[in-house]
Amino acid sequence: MDIMANVLLAAGASPAMAHALDEVQDFVAISSALLINMGTLSSDWVASKKLAAAKAVALGKPWVLDPVGCGATPYRTAACLHMLQLKPTVVRGNASEILALAGAAASVKGVDSTAASHEALDAAKKIAQQYGCIVAVSGATDLVTDGSRVVGVSNGTALLTQITATGCSVTALIAAFLAAAPEGAALQAAAAALAVFGLAGEVGLANAPRPGPGSLRVGLLDALHLLGEAEVVAGVNLSEQ
Amino acid sequence: MDIMANVLLAAGASPAMAHALDEVQDFVAISSALLINMGTLSSDWVASKKLAAAKAVALGKPWVLDPVGCGATPYRTAACLHMLQLKPTVVRGNASEILALAGAAASVKGVDSTAASHEALDAAKKIAQQYGCIVAVSGATDLVTDGSRVVGVSNGTALLTQITATGCSVTALIAAFLAAAPEGAALQAAAAALAVFGLAGEVGLANAPRPGPGSLRVGLLDALHLLGEAEVVAGVNLSEQ
Amino acid sequence: MDIMANVLLAAGASPAMAHALDEVQDFVAISSALLINMGTLSSDWVASKKLAAAKAVALGKPWVLDPVGCGATPYRTAACLHMLQLKPTVVRGNASEILALAGAAASVKGVDSTAASHEALDAAKKIAQQYGCIVAVSGATDLVTDGSRVVGVSNGTALLTQITATGCSVTALIAAFLAAAPEGAALQAAAAALAVFGLAGEVGLANAPRPGPGSLRVGLLDALHLLGEAEVVAGVNLSEQ
Repeated sequence: MDIMANVLLAAGASPAMAHALDEVQDFVAISSALLINMGTLSSDWVASKKLAAAKAVALGKPWVLDPVGCGATPYRTAACLHMLQLKPTVVRGNASEILALAGAAASVKGVDSTAASHEALDAAKKIAQQYGCIVAVSGATDLVTDGSRVVGVSNGTALLTQITATGCSVTALIAAFLAAAPEGAALQAAAAALAVFGLAGEVGLANAPRPGPGSLRVGLLDALHLLGEAEVVAGVNLSEQ
Repeated sequence: MDIMANVLLAAGASPAMAHALDEVQDFVAISSALLINMGTLSSDWVASKKLAAAKAVALGKPWVLDPVGCGATPYRTAACLHMLQLKPTVVRGNASEILALAGAAASVKGVDSTAASHEALDAAKKIAQQYGCIVAVSGATDLVTDGSRVVGVSNGTALLTQITATGCSVTALIAAFLAAAPEGAALQAAAAALAVFGLAGEVGLANAPRPGPGSLRVGLLDALHLLGEAEVVAGVNLSEQ
Repeated sequence: MDIMANVLLAAGASPAMAHALDEVQDFVAISSALLINMGTLSSDWVASKKLAAAKAVALGKPWVLDPVGCGATPYRTAACLHMLQLKPTVVRGNASEILALAGAAASVKGVDSTAASHEALDAAKKIAQQYGCIVAVSGATDLVTDGSRVVGVSNGTALLTQITATGCSVTALIAAFLAAAPEGAALQAAAAALAVFGLAGEVGLANAPRPGPGSLRVGLLDALHLLGEAEVVAGVNLSEQ
């Protein structure tokens, strides 16, 4: 939660984290977008997540699902699948998680992916078509699809995977971009968030005194805050796949 | 919780974080001061917070309330008001939170303030008088009042608001200063904590390789640990308002 | 949890954090080692910890106990003692915690130690003999014992104690080393993890722009990721005691 909130603040968003059954619906009502992260599950929190997602849908607000560790345990997979029924605007996961979410065979060992993003593209398209959502698969090249179109994002650096919750953080950034995007531009918003986050990682690594995950985390947050529009336009690496 | 504990350790305090109903009272008994932060509420935690605050009062130990996001949801506002009845020594919030706590009209959107500190000064005085506590309002100039006297603190840098939980962290530092302060010096302790934290932010920013929130967080913790007494005396910016 | 996960990722491990009763056993089944940290207790979490430890033992997987704040409250001491009955492979604590765990008189004030490691050596040996486990006592010199042999680890820097959860993090690293160690080499794995963590702290401090805890945290994570085998062999400071 720490780096997720810091990523959002650095990028100019105004995050609030809440999980109490007594207030999640009220928080959704004053928010511009909702992020549901399945990382640290408990039965109480799952109940709150369902309430929050349903409220977002009822109010017509965008919401994003991060199916952390989907496939690692039956409880987690079932909880992620239940959330998927609640019609997220965007789903963002690594290849293992997206494969598990689509019911495809995937070896999931905890929360780190054991597959490359392109191996999960068919699974991503299937989810996108079946649930009418955008699906993003993180990897060396991130893939974002609405079920037919596919956008590739080639920003980022492998060292980002050595920092905890960077996947979670980019999903949070997708929610922030959705909050600011026009209706119907969810695919573009998701791809742009992935590209900007990856670019901030590249810049952060270039500015780091050492190529280590401690320095990269510092540089990533600095870059998210300091990147100018011209640098973003020049640096993002998007392509139709 | 991460940055709060690191701020306290850097400043020479010895923090422990506990929330279990079964032990919060025992932890209060071995502590020099108590901090209650309303950030991540749940019904279990609210029950523990009430027990802990009552124990601190029973033992004559100082305790500090951080009404995070007060006004954002009815549940949160009610919980903060309930805590206020339990007689905190000091309350520290941003202007939106203090306005909401005083029952004044305030637009609260999550946990970031939408008002300047001076707009909440009357609300702060009202709370201080009614509950016999010190109230601190964070902002470009922090204001600290016992209901009649008002001290202004002009240290700090706006970039601190781009790091999550810096408000929570300065409240934690107020608790540490209260633990070390003589009886009856709560106003001075709160103002001093705000000034030292702000000064550490200034020094941290001056030492940062880039004016970004990642670097500032590192520099802030370094400065809290390394600031000497002479630098503090020379750097704090306090004034009677 | 943030720094613990980052330490493990920097060192090349693949951490997952789970606490739901509904899935902890399944997570243990796909893990190579289990860490149980008693830092933030609640009755739900204690129940999950017991289930997870029992599962690890049933599957013959190594597990490590970090009795955070043992002795600080009766609830916490009882919970730690209960976990100890579940036969951890390794226990790692500071001197105060190990003394409290052994039932010896110890002044415990929160989670920071008030005793030096050698003061807890007899307590550590007693626990190791009684429960058939390895016990590590952190301090200026870390001591690791199987009840008869004692290995001393003289790496590290005092400034590490000014960063929250560095004790927790080195316990997590012990779990990662156990996952990779041959059967019967738990003492060596624990000592090696303590030495590598301490060495990374030394290197991190040497590389830091300032001797502060913010910079040390960055440098520590960088060093854990970047340290080569030759540097480790040359830098670790182990001795039979």
